[in-house]
Amino acid sequence: MTTLAQARVAMKHGAGGRSMRKLIERVFLAGATGVAADMDDGAAIRVGDQWLIVTTDSHVIQPIVFPGGDIGRLSVAGTVNDLAMMGATEPLGLTCGIVLEEGFAIDDLERIQASIRATCADAATSIVAGDTKVMRRGEVDGVVINTSGVALTRRVVRDRGLQPGDAVIVTGTVGDHGMAVMAVRHEFQFGESLTSDVAPLNGLIRAALAAGGDGITAMKDPTRGGVASALHEMADKAGVSILLREEAIPVRATVRAAAELLGIDPLFIANEGKALIGVRPGQAEGVLTALHMHPLGRDAAVIGTCLAESPGSIVLDTGFGQRLLSEPDGELLPRIC
Amino acid sequence: MTTLAQARVAMKHGAGGRSMRKLIERVFLAGATGVAADMDDGAAIRVGDQWLIVTTDSHVIQPIVFPGGDIGRLSVAGTVNDLAMMGATEPLGLTCGIVLEEGFAIDDLERIQASIRATCADAATSIVAGDTKVMRRGEVDGVVINTSGVALTRRVVRDRGLQPGDAVIVTGTVGDHGMAVMAVRHEFQFGESLTSDVAPLNGLIRAALAAGGDGITAMKDPTRGGVASALHEMADKAGVSILLREEAIPVRATVRAAAELLGIDPLFIANEGKALIGVRPGQAEGVLTALHMHPLGRDAAVIGTCLAESPGSIVLDTGFGQRLLSEPDGELLPRIC
Repeated sequence: MTTLAQARVAMKHGAGGRSMRKLIERVFLAGATGVAADMDDGAAIRVGDQWLIVTTDSHVIQPIVFPGGDIGRLSVAGTVNDLAMMGATEPLGLTCGIVLEEGFAIDDLERIQASIRATCADAATSIVAGDTKVMRRGEVDGVVINTSGVALTRRVVRDRGLQPGDAVIVTGTVGDHGMAVMAVRHEFQFGESLTSDVAPLNGLIRAALAAGGDGITAMKDPTRGGVASALHEMADKAGVSILLREEAIPVRATVRAAAELLGIDPLFIANEGKALIGVRPGQAEGVLTALHMHPLGRDAAVIGTCLAESPGSIVLDTGFGQRLLSEPDGELLPRIC
Repeated sequence: MTTLAQARVAMKHGAGGRSMRKLIERVFLAGATGVAADMDDGAAIRVGDQWLIVTTDSHVIQPIVFPGGDIGRLSVAGTVNDLAMMGATEPLGLTCGIVLEEGFAIDDLERIQASIRATCADAATSIVAGDTKVMRRGEVDGVVINTSGVALTRRVVRDRGLQPGDAVIVTGTVGDHGMAVMAVRHEFQFGESLTSDVAPLNGLIRAALAAGGDGITAMKDPTRGGVASALHEMADKAGVSILLREEAIPVRATVRAAAELLGIDPLFIANEGKALIGVRPGQAEGVLTALHMHPLGRDAAVIGTCLAESPGSIVLDTGFGQRLLSEPDGELLPRIC
C-alpha cells in the first residue's frame, strides 16, 4: 500500500482534475476553514459593503507562443477571468511574478511584456506590482509567470450556486485553446489553423451580469480538464445533476475534426476564453441575447439544464440516447496553461 | 556593442540590485505610469478612504530547508513584510501559487504547508486562494512558490520618503539569512550554527508605527543585496545621502566571523526578518524604545542619519574615517530567497 507519506507529485496533480483536488484537500486544506476551503476561482473577503476578490494563477505553458496567444496574454486573461467568474469584472489591478531561466532571450521577454500590456488594455486593467527571480540554466524551463488579481464587487457569484431548473450556458465554442496548443506542440497539419481562444472575459461577463442580475447563479471558466471537468465540479458542489444536449454544444469544425482524428472529446479539452454560466430559467434568454451582442459571445448557447436527481452526475443527451459523461482526471496535456 | 535585443537574462537580473532594476525599467516599465512605476515593495490602490496594498513575490530558495526556516516560512514572511513596509500590518489574506516538479515528495510538500500555516498564524493571517501546477521532471528544480498579499491601511509608508535629518533605524542584526543559507549550501563548519532571521515583521512594524506615527517617513526590508542595496535605493529615490556609523550596526558575532572569513561585508548579505526605518529625529527615541520591547526588535539600533548633500550616496563612518559604501549589483548568492 502506498501511503501519502511515500507518495510523490505526479503530472496529474497539476492537471486540474480529481487528483489535483484530492492533493489540495489533503495537503493544502488540511484543517482549513473559511474562504480557502471553498476552492472557488478566488477568495471573497468582506471590505465595507463590498467584497474584495483575490485570485492567483501560475502559468507554465509550453510552448510560450502558440496560435492565438502567448504566455503573457494567457497570464493576464487567466487572472482577469478568475476574478470575473466571481462576479468581479473591474480588476483594481494585477500582480506579476516572473521566474526566468538564466539565458532567456531578453527580446522574448520584451514580447511577453508587450503582450501582457496589450491584454491588460483589453481588460481595462494594469500590472500594479511585480517581482523578478532568475534561476540557473536547467533549473527552470524558460519562464514561469504568476499573476494574482484583486477586484471589488457588490455581489459574489460562486461556482457552487447552480439550482435545479437553471439553464447552463457556454459563452462560445469549446476546446479551442487545448487543441491549438496540442497541434503546435505535436506539429499537426490541418487545412485551417487551430487557434487558441485565450481572451479576458470581464467585458463579456459584465454584459451577462447586467442582463441576468441575480438570475445568474453560478459561473466557472472551463480551463484545465475542459467543460467536462468544470461541470462536474459545479454539479458536485451544488448537489445537482446537469443534462447536456450534445448537439447544442458549439465546437469549431476544425476542432471537431482534429478531436475526432485524435479520439478526444472536445468537452475534455482546455479553454482560456470561455465561461460556463448557470442562469435561472426566466433570465436565460436575456443573458443569451446579451452574450450574442458581444464579440466574444457570438457563439454562446444554452447547452443544458440542472436537475435535482442524481446529484453530481453529468448526463449527455446525444440525440440517440443518454450517457453519463465521466469526470476526467484533469487535463490530457501537461503545461496547457 | 551588445544591444538589449541580443541580450540574455543573467543571474544578476534576479539579484535585487542595479542590473535587476535596469531590466525592470527597460522591459517591464517601458511606458508605464502610475503605481507600478513607483517600484516600491508593493502597490497602493485607493479604496474608499483607505489604501489597498497589493504585493507579490516568487520564492526560489535553494535549499528549501535551511537553519531557521524553509521556503514555506520564507514565502509567507516575505509577503507579510512587503505589506508591512508599506504601512499595512494587518494582511487581509495571502495567495499561494505553487509550481512543483514531478516526483517531488508529498511529505516534503506537507512539511512546507505546515510551515506556511504556522507562519500565517504568527502573522495573524491566512492563505485565502491558491493554485497548483506541476512541471515535468527536470523542468523546474523542486518547488517554486509565489505569494501575493493584500491589506488595507489608512496611511501608506513609501520607501522613498526619507528626509534630511531623519534617523535610520535597523530593527536587528544584519546578514543572518544570507549567511545561514550560504553556510548550509557550502557546508561551512562553525562553532555556533548560523540561523536565518526569517520572520513576519507585521507585529513589530505595528508597534513602530504606533510609537512613531507620521514621524516614520520610509521603510524597506533589506532582502536581496542586504542593507547596502536597500539603503542605496532609499537614498536614490529620496534624493538624500545617508551617513552610517559602522560601530552602531548590529551584527551577530558568528555572522561577523563567517563574513570576515569569506571577505564579505555583512551589509551586502540578505535579511528576511529585518526592516530599515526612517524616522524624524524627534520620534526616533520613541520608535527605538517600542522596537526594543518587541521580541523581534531587541537589537534595533539607530545606524545613521540622512543628509541633504551628495544625494544617493551612502557614507560609512568607520570610526577611523569615512568611506563611500558602494552599491552592490544585488545579491552575492543566487536563489537566496
